[in-house]
Amino acid sequence: MVGGGQLARMTHEAGIPLGIRFKLLADTPQDSAAQVVSDVVIGDHRDLDTLRAFAQGCDVITFDHEHVPTAHLRALEADGIPVRPGPDALVHAQDKGRMRARLAELGIPAPRNRIVRDPADVAAFAAEGAAGEETDGTAADGNTPAGSGSGAGFPVVLKTVRGGYDGKGVWIVRSADDPTAAEPFKAGVDVLAEEKVDFARELAANVVRSPHGQAVAYPVVESIQVDGVCDTVIAPAPGLDPDAAVHAQELALRIAHELGVVGHLAVELFETRDGRVLVNELAMRPHNSGHWTQDGAVTSQFANHLRAVLDLPLGDPRSRAPWTVMANVLGGDYPDMYSAYLHCMARDPQLKIHMYGKTVKPGRKVGHVNIAGDDLPDLRERAAHAAGYLRGTITE
Amino acid sequence: MVGGGQLARMTHEAGIPLGIRFKLLADTPQDSAAQVVSDVVIGDHRDLDTLRAFAQGCDVITFDHEHVPTAHLRALEADGIPVRPGPDALVHAQDKGRMRARLAELGIPAPRNRIVRDPADVAAFAAEGAAGEETDGTAADGNTPAGSGSGAGFPVVLKTVRGGYDGKGVWIVRSADDPTAAEPFKAGVDVLAEEKVDFARELAANVVRSPHGQAVAYPVVESIQVDGVCDTVIAPAPGLDPDAAVHAQELALRIAHELGVVGHLAVELFETRDGRVLVNELAMRPHNSGHWTQDGAVTSQFANHLRAVLDLPLGDPRSRAPWTVMANVLGGDYPDMYSAYLHCMARDPQLKIHMYGKTVKPGRKVGHVNIAGDDLPDLRERAAHAAGYLRGTITE
Repeated sequence: MVGGGQLARMTHEAGIPLGIRFKLLADTPQDSAAQVVSDVVIGDHRDLDTLRAFAQGCDVITFDHEHVPTAHLRALEADGIPVRPGPDALVHAQDKGRMRARLAELGIPAPRNRIVRDPADVAAFAAEGAAGEETDGTAADGNTPAGSGSGAGFPVVLKTVRGGYDGKGVWIVRSADDPTAAEPFKAGVDVLAEEKVDFARELAANVVRSPHGQAVAYPVVESIQVDGVCDTVIAPAPGLDPDAAVHAQELALRIAHELGVVGHLAVELFETRDGRVLVNELAMRPHNSGHWTQDGAVTSQFANHLRAVLDLPLGDPRSRAPWTVMANVLGGDYPDMYSAYLHCMARDPQLKIHMYGKTVKPGRKVGHVNIAGDDLPDLRERAAHAAGYLRGTITE
Repeated sequence: MVGGGQLARMTHEAGIPLGIRFKLLADTPQDSAAQVVSDVVIGDHRDLDTLRAFAQGCDVITFDHEHVPTAHLRALEADGIPVRPGPDALVHAQDKGRMRARLAELGIPAPRNRIVRDPADVAAFAAEGAAGEETDGTAADGNTPAGSGSGAGFPVVLKTVRGGYDGKGVWIVRSADDPTAAEPFKAGVDVLAEEKVDFARELAANVVRSPHGQAVAYPVVESIQVDGVCDTVIAPAPGLDPDAAVHAQELALRIAHELGVVGHLAVELFETRDGRVLVNELAMRPHNSGHWTQDGAVTSQFANHLRAVLDLPLGDPRSRAPWTVMANVLGGDYPDMYSAYLHCMARDPQLKIHMYGKTVKPGRKVGHVNIAGDDLPDLRERAAHAAGYLRGTITE
């Protein structure tokens, strides 16, 4: 696995019972996954020679993140190393412009969007939305408008097509003279404009697909974001109409099939106030919206990602409990979380704590908690308490 | 953790989410745990200098096996390294004679037993049993007889007090002129004679205890042995009277307390045909009879062992499903289990496979499977099928 973050750490954990020999390419020996894996190579994933040397002896290469250049992935494939997901699929998780264009071709509902050239073009994009126009043939991607009632066309969401995550690389432009509109163009990469969807809530449909086309769909979850960062995930999404849940699962399975995804695919969705779903983002690796599966599903997303990339038969994705709640633990002002960690274990013996071995920095994801059971309000309170206590925002 | 076997492998797996930095002392880099742990020292656990060097930087030392000499453990403690379980407790899992003597002092029911000097003494021990005598004050340990109706006093079970496991170091003597009676005395260690209990079945009571005395008790399980090796574990033990289950849990908690155990304690029990329980063996580490907890309990034995030895609050030991069945996977005649592994995953997506990364040798424990659910006969069939298929004794 390329990338030493917490996703690799938890994938290694899931690979131990499968008997898998796990090799890691990490930036530093202090990386989250490098702390717990036996076979670690320290090197730069942007360097092709490093990747080639790392790939020696690997049956398959997979990823903790989307940052390996596409050309390098093609070079590894040309060397005969299976790369899963492959570059033709992964590019849709690396480049939001490519993703939008492809989903539009497939007729998959998404926020109105197009590539914009400069702040004036952002204002033009907003005006198109205000006029309620169908996106015309000259737009980069031709998505149908979501019709979410974005008023005078603002606010508009701008995203660099590459490099953003957790709210980074995203700007909200509130009017034609908002100076924020100039910011994204400074990065020198393409900028995607999207209508700001007035969604009811965010959902995620997680699926896993094998090279030979076997696929499983996890229950659709609700994802609650705070300041652009995932805060809480509830599995399954409360009150979601069963037909709508199946529709979202089918949408995710179709995307996985059409894009040729191998491994875990997270489809982040906006649920509109009239009950439709629009695709927000794609991730082709284990994803924060699937962390609940470690303690809430028969087979975790990490185990199924490994099973998929190794072309092993997939495991049962179903829930083991009526409800599972995941809450992210963000770093707070105090670097030593030990006493809080003791407190949370003592307060709630059913709490499942997952720490990433990372140095605490304010706002950094340093762990998460899962809790499964029957009583959703109770589970939400306990998960929120533990996450808040570990962060230091709750002191009791 | 000292010892590189599968117990250390699975303990490391359980420590990853806890954020624990795990250091391993293994015999070879090919050891089961050494394959998956980052921080591995290769060395001999019987060598004090090796142990001392290994212990540098450890907050606490714990064990995958019972083979570290007691004097070395005392030396580590004298160096200021916490050793958990400590040598005064662990000796009862290392030396069956010491264990029998201590349990007798505590009045805990056990098979009739005493240390024997030679084959003639074995015959004398059998005769004592045939006469139905109470063990007299001159016996090494003074256990009360189980009264299990062992006929003319034979068969007698002989065990070397140190070094046996999985049926090794155990002999059955069937009559006064059985030449087997001479075998155990060749090893040069004390030999313990025990009545061969005509038990109804074997149970195990697993508990975990912290340095500050917090303790949890797992559901009592049934353990089915084949040729002296654990074959299947059923959690909870089917048809066990609830009062008898609580009694067995209390017995295990009392032993943990009286012996000062820190960490996981497995108490292997014989259930007699009249419903009493007799203590067979003790193990002070994660134990085969607790492997079901990985997929069947809220907190696994491995996680709770770590929480105990680090004096962290313990996790909920309760079952997550009405039934969980564990079946050991033994090596068969074919070293390559890959196609069987594929078959088992494809046949049963709910099956949880745990492989140890060991070279396959006939009869060697190379993994286990767990399966949890509502329908016990169905779960037993599926676990037995998977274990048999992986071993090569079932081909469908």
